[in-house]
Amino acid sequence: MTAFEDRSGDVHVVGGVAPSADAPRLVVIGRVRTKNYDAAATPKNPTKAREAGGPSVIEVAEPFRPGLVGLERYSHVMVLCWLDQARRDLIQITRPSDPAPKGVFALRAPVRPNPISLSTSRILALNSAAGILTVEALDLIDGTPVVDLKPYRPGIDAIPDAVVP
Amino acid sequence: MTAFEDRSGDVHVVGGVAPSADAPRLVVIGRVRTKNYDAAATPKNPTKAREAGGPSVIEVAEPFRPGLVGLERYSHVMVLCWLDQARRDLIQITRPSDPAPKGVFALRAPVRPNPISLSTSRILALNSAAGILTVEALDLIDGTPVVDLKPYRPGIDAIPDAVVP
Repeated sequence: MTAFEDRSGDVHVVGGVAPSADAPRLVVIGRVRTKNYDAAATPKNPTKAREAGGPSVIEVAEPFRPGLVGLERYSHVMVLCWLDQARRDLIQITRPSDPAPKGVFALRAPVRPNPISLSTSRILALNSAAGILTVEALDLIDGTPVVDLKPYRPGIDAIPDAVVP
Repeated sequence: MTAFEDRSGDVHVVGGVAPSADAPRLVVIGRVRTKNYDAAATPKNPTKAREAGGPSVIEVAEPFRPGLVGLERYSHVMVLCWLDQARRDLIQITRPSDPAPKGVFALRAPVRPNPISLSTSRILALNSAAGILTVEALDLIDGTPVVDLKPYRPGIDAIPDAVVP
């Protein structure tokens, strides 16, 4: 069984996910470069990615490189990617660790109607002119399209006492 | 001068931002309901939004409501929106507080090639069946399209000692 097949208990979006002709369209601003060359070989979370080692690199396309100026003043960056290999048609999924289906908005799995990933990672080096942003290892497949980068601001982004199940 | 006009020092994306025909397309999964009815009346950050009072509501469209199941186990949610009133054609901007242009990837301003916002907010109530997620006040315009919701996990999302300028 691959990750792309239905598991028992998976629930599809009724009517499917069909963006309209006037739906918002994303531009790809860059690509992630990791040592993860397919989904099976990709760490399942950022902690496992860091354990596997290596930095990762974000290659920013030339028209968007001026957008990096100033990011060197921050220690961490939020990387938003478009997970182009993820299914968009499931709204509840089961996982091996939990047989009860959960909504995709209550999970960090790649599967969701808009497969946008969010990774917060430490900035290791930045060459704005060359469009090379080096960060701690990401749990993303090599070549994944990047759609946004945001500076991490603990004043609004860090909630250490947030409750999880 | 409105927020939609160029300021001295603003830098445009060379070649413009023109998503290709096969660019990733977003589906709108819901809408934000706030008391901010235009850009000028919208608080500039989450702290100011909470000071102005709330709550805010996220109305999730029917096909996507099963995706909410399980989110009630978390205290905080990350709300990703498509800022449909934001400019996409600027790559560096100046702000009144800082005359030196900064890259949009080093700022949390709405202006960016893909105007995706990220707000982490406390969950106040959830009615999955009705698609009503009530959260602390958001600094977003009423009616803003929602494109994703993610449970906040401090283990990967909270970096309290991250450095900012």
